[in-house]
Amino acid sequence: MTDNHATAGVPMRWVGPVRISGNVATTETTVPLATYESPLWPSVGRGAKVSRQAEHGIVATLVDERMTRSVLVEANDAATALAAARHIETHLEELQAIVRGCSRYAQLVGVRHEINANLLFVRFEFTTGDASGHNMATLASDLLLEHLLRTVPGISYGSISANYCTDKKASAVNGILGRGKNVVTELLVPHKTVTGVLHTTAAKIVQLNIRKNMLGTLLAGGVRSANAHFANMLLGFYLATGQDAANIVEGSQGTVTAEERDGDLYFACTLPNLIVGTVGNGKGLAFVDTNLARLGCRIDREPGDNARRLAVIAAATVLCGELSLLAAQTNPGELMHAHVHLERHTTTGKDGA
Amino acid sequence: MTDNHATAGVPMRWVGPVRISGNVATTETTVPLATYESPLWPSVGRGAKVSRQAEHGIVATLVDERMTRSVLVEANDAATALAAARHIETHLEELQAIVRGCSRYAQLVGVRHEINANLLFVRFEFTTGDASGHNMATLASDLLLEHLLRTVPGISYGSISANYCTDKKASAVNGILGRGKNVVTELLVPHKTVTGVLHTTAAKIVQLNIRKNMLGTLLAGGVRSANAHFANMLLGFYLATGQDAANIVEGSQGTVTAEERDGDLYFACTLPNLIVGTVGNGKGLAFVDTNLARLGCRIDREPGDNARRLAVIAAATVLCGELSLLAAQTNPGELMHAHVHLERHTTTGKDGA
Amino acid sequence: MTDNHATAGVPMRWVGPVRISGNVATTETTVPLATYESPLWPSVGRGAKVSRQAEHGIVATLVDERMTRSVLVEANDAATALAAARHIETHLEELQAIVRGCSRYAQLVGVRHEINANLLFVRFEFTTGDASGHNMATLASDLLLEHLLRTVPGISYGSISANYCTDKKASAVNGILGRGKNVVTELLVPHKTVTGVLHTTAAKIVQLNIRKNMLGTLLAGGVRSANAHFANMLLGFYLATGQDAANIVEGSQGTVTAEERDGDLYFACTLPNLIVGTVGNGKGLAFVDTNLARLGCRIDREPGDNARRLAVIAAATVLCGELSLLAAQTNPGELMHAHVHLERHTTTGKDGA
Amino acid sequence: MTDNHATAGVPMRWVGPVRISGNVATTETTVPLATYESPLWPSVGRGAKVSRQAEHGIVATLVDERMTRSVLVEANDAATALAAARHIETHLEELQAIVRGCSRYAQLVGVRHEINANLLFVRFEFTTGDASGHNMATLASDLLLEHLLRTVPGISYGSISANYCTDKKASAVNGILGRGKNVVTELLVPHKTVTGVLHTTAAKIVQLNIRKNMLGTLLAGGVRSANAHFANMLLGFYLATGQDAANIVEGSQGTVTAEERDGDLYFACTLPNLIVGTVGNGKGLAFVDTNLARLGCRIDREPGDNARRLAVIAAATVLCGELSLLAAQTNPGELMHAHVHLERHTTTGKDGA
Repeated sequence: MTDNHATAGVPMRWVGPVRISGNVATTETTVPLATYESPLWPSVGRGAKVSRQAEHGIVATLVDERMTRSVLVEANDAATALAAARHIETHLEELQAIVRGCSRYAQLVGVRHEINANLLFVRFEFTTGDASGHNMATLASDLLLEHLLRTVPGISYGSISANYCTDKKASAVNGILGRGKNVVTELLVPHKTVTGVLHTTAAKIVQLNIRKNMLGTLLAGGVRSANAHFANMLLGFYLATGQDAANIVEGSQGTVTAEERDGDLYFACTLPNLIVGTVGNGKGLAFVDTNLARLGCRIDREPGDNARRLAVIAAATVLCGELSLLAAQTNPGELMHAHVHLERHTTTGKDGA
Repeated sequence: MTDNHATAGVPMRWVGPVRISGNVATTETTVPLATYESPLWPSVGRGAKVSRQAEHGIVATLVDERMTRSVLVEANDAATALAAARHIETHLEELQAIVRGCSRYAQLVGVRHEINANLLFVRFEFTTGDASGHNMATLASDLLLEHLLRTVPGISYGSISANYCTDKKASAVNGILGRGKNVVTELLVPHKTVTGVLHTTAAKIVQLNIRKNMLGTLLAGGVRSANAHFANMLLGFYLATGQDAANIVEGSQGTVTAEERDGDLYFACTLPNLIVGTVGNGKGLAFVDTNLARLGCRIDREPGDNARRLAVIAAATVLCGELSLLAAQTNPGELMHAHVHLERHTTTGKDGA
Repeated sequence: MTDNHATAGVPMRWVGPVRISGNVATTETTVPLATYESPLWPSVGRGAKVSRQAEHGIVATLVDERMTRSVLVEANDAATALAAARHIETHLEELQAIVRGCSRYAQLVGVRHEINANLLFVRFEFTTGDASGHNMATLASDLLLEHLLRTVPGISYGSISANYCTDKKASAVNGILGRGKNVVTELLVPHKTVTGVLHTTAAKIVQLNIRKNMLGTLLAGGVRSANAHFANMLLGFYLATGQDAANIVEGSQGTVTAEERDGDLYFACTLPNLIVGTVGNGKGLAFVDTNLARLGCRIDREPGDNARRLAVIAAATVLCGELSLLAAQTNPGELMHAHVHLERHTTTGKDGA
Repeated sequence: MTDNHATAGVPMRWVGPVRISGNVATTETTVPLATYESPLWPSVGRGAKVSRQAEHGIVATLVDERMTRSVLVEANDAATALAAARHIETHLEELQAIVRGCSRYAQLVGVRHEINANLLFVRFEFTTGDASGHNMATLASDLLLEHLLRTVPGISYGSISANYCTDKKASAVNGILGRGKNVVTELLVPHKTVTGVLHTTAAKIVQLNIRKNMLGTLLAGGVRSANAHFANMLLGFYLATGQDAANIVEGSQGTVTAEERDGDLYFACTLPNLIVGTVGNGKGLAFVDTNLARLGCRIDREPGDNARRLAVIAAATVLCGELSLLAAQTNPGELMHAHVHLERHTTTGKDGA
């Protein structure tokens, strides 16, 4: 290893296990989190404990999945852009054949477009097997764009990527049109767990979620987001599993729902834009491979099944950390005391690691 | 090292050097980037090369710095919330004294508030020396909130953090009111460098920036953002220097300005919300300490000077990667070919690492 | 007329004519603007003059049209919400038949949905003939919702309107999914007109559009918008033609494109969410009827043709006012002098009216 | 009256009276609404009835008031822009004197700025007496800009208005920094009124507000907004009182708070950006003058008092209509039946008007 070829050793721990059920996986699994912020581990750990006190654990429902890439073409004028858009709509099968020809896994499942002045933004939607699909989508879009430029009159190259995809930027388009795995996680926390483990009440969590996550974010000028710290859990989980962690930017745009139901707490996290994969960049590193195997995502299944399993585990992990932090913030002083205590404690731990 | 106490070894390389000048630092320094996305290294490397062909390199101007925490208090009604807000305005010195009493480094430099129905969101603004300041701000806010609840009539505890801070969420408030280091980087790229190193023209970059970064993001429903991939460079730099990388969510909200000036290219990145520090969580890890030292951020200076130096280096690194990618996207096919080539190349490299 | 049944007499003038071509109408027509802001009339008038100096005038391209209403249903859980969404997708024809049964003009052309926790937002998309379609869409959605609640298990009534439509609120969803008439207007302003009538240069307009409309709005935390004052022209035109002028909230979300082309100025306005109709509330008032007839929108044509004509005239009017104001703002002091002069002048005019 | 100098006679009715108290006015007043959407009248009327069944009626708290204009200056580079910003901060009194010299009513109460690349956006904040203040602020900003260009080195004219003001565009900046009158209205609706007049329950209103106004708007990609139809009431009130109704675009950005309190309903509307005045454009029209007098806003008071009174009446009117519509939407079918019934009814009324 030379001076310039090294690794950044981010502290990593396994916490849990988290109990998960739903339309993708039924499992109890510990989860790895790599982070410099050590209080994250006990926080997620507490949420995991809560999950094990609910009969079905965290019920994770995969709602949708797709990877997108938007290309930009310049047309002679808006009328020509409109004609090009119509051409694309009526030649979908032709475009799908092109994608089949370039990849074993990528499938073109939809195309959306938007016209602005004489510009045409075309947003290709793909399924990409077990890969998160950035590169697969870019390669396919490259061929599709080349094909369109050759066959549609009056248009020329604008850009292979036009920020209408949109990758690693917070926006509204991904949530509305879909990008990545769309996962809803739901947990019915029994009354005695709310009191005994979370040291709070359902009513307090409900109120804090409305005032902080929903209203506070609204006043801050947030976009399609209502949560306390989805980004923290995603970062830790993404680093530990070889994901491109820059995708936490849009991945952390999601919402929390909290309702009191007969004294129990219904707590749900909606994460419409999880970008995860079990193959591709980073997945070949030894520790990543080990981690993915330990999570049960290295099994010989149908293409996409391992990635879907990883997505619901990621989403369940997010719920654990979010629930724990919100509970802490319902009590004056608890957050600060926890941080001061845990950092002293875990720093010692880190020194020994 | 037990099974559960490990590290995630994120591949890291030093690229550059980057030439930097401005109101904080004048230096030529290589920069470390830890990432699973290996094409990032040559991309930033090309930008760094460009910086060295400009007389002053990248001119980085630190415009502002502050760390914030918003607390939430519930008032009896809006009139009481308004009275509380007025109380805070007229007792600023009292609050500043409380902060001085709890920290050697934290200073309360401003307070903003917003009233919604009977709720009062109070946003405290601090300077925090060389720390990014999350914990310092939370500790101080905890004391300030406790003091307010004791001395102002008609209010009660809402939350120690109310998402109006706002931490690790994309929003408008941080850019408008300030949070983190606000850094502008400017680079005048000579005509022959645009052609010879970036293989494009100033006019093409200008047009792509308007259509992709500005318009594309606008159409995607983005918020206070116009760039291609600030998040990638920030992630790599943050991981390599022990920062809390979840702060790339808001840190990557920034803009690119590109103008043709007599054939040269004026290229600027504005990053109003860089959260960086040289002390605190993660900074004690051996490789982080080494990296910070190599970046010249471990020198015995006035409190805050090391963090400011780190901020402008981070910002200059962002510019390098952004410029290089935009240049690539002006040419049909270049991005894909570069990725395919580089990943093959660097994967070999990673195997050897 | 009793004390409580009166009219608000908003000053109205006809300005122009505006020259228009494109895929909907080729015409030269004066346009009515009702407003308390008298400087608007000469401003739009100047833009109209410019339109007449371009060979094809303002080329207006209708890109899309639809009216939407989102209903909210509560499901037992996310899995049930997903099953309900799948049911809707596979029963589209059944739903279309219901709509055909309740209206001669409304047609269900699409359905989109979004799941959040256990909630299902369903967004119905209709064409509605010559009506703007609010009521037609609400009536149809009422029946569709009733049908779904009766036939899909596990769901119950949430709301007939769920702000995901979205009506009279600024958001991203309407631009991305479509609502109202989507119209692009383009004008190639000859060099001598830029100089002689607008007293500026193409380069100045281009720069101001980038810095003010695009960047300024971005920094303000705007959403899918980049213009100076679309709202002014829409308000005046909507009031004069009996439209529900509260729809300027989303209607004014649109963009300006300005480019220098061989010394000429290419100037385009994209208005993706124009809500206009020639029948329905307000259209029966005598002056509205007269105005619509004078605009050529009371002719016996195919259903929808009159409304489409009205939409492109509205969009062309917006372009006229936008171009004129931007030109004025390129010159220091011109805006203020124009306002002071015009208000004195037009106030006299109003006195005489 | 010639063909081209006419008026658009928008149907107008007085509804109420609305009971109002708070820090600006204690009154019971009917309110005028000019609109083509006749169902608005009974809807606001029902809300007004509710207000009269609450002991203090609608408690309206004026939180803040200011009018703003942002100018744009181009600097040689970011460092020069920063120096200019510092100059402005340290010369505030000098700038205030300039404003005093140009207007009897305008006062410069604050200046904010934002730097982007080499551009400096300066946002001047004024109080403007009884005027909404658009023109007063523009005139003052014109002089301030001229002064700055003459006295600060290295800067040149960019624009007199830079969309960071921001006028008639939906954004985050106005809510965060303040623009117009900031008014909170609160109403405690007795349990029996919720049942007897609104035909619903507090719990249903609370749930609908969270799901539709807060979550629905969030999912739609809205910005700083959570309401059903503030825009409708503002449009009607603004037209009836001579306001520039294009300001409903930002004026309608506001939130609804609903809570159950011991069986009663706490219902609050926060409207941070109401732009209203009792002098200026449109206020000299005979019917406007009459309406303002009837509202008690033509009394000889301290400058600003009449405008503040008008603002709280506007805000209270918004609450009435919002509460009524939300109540209707809690009941399946009610909205549609009400619309069908009312339009038939009121159309007859209009015919007779």
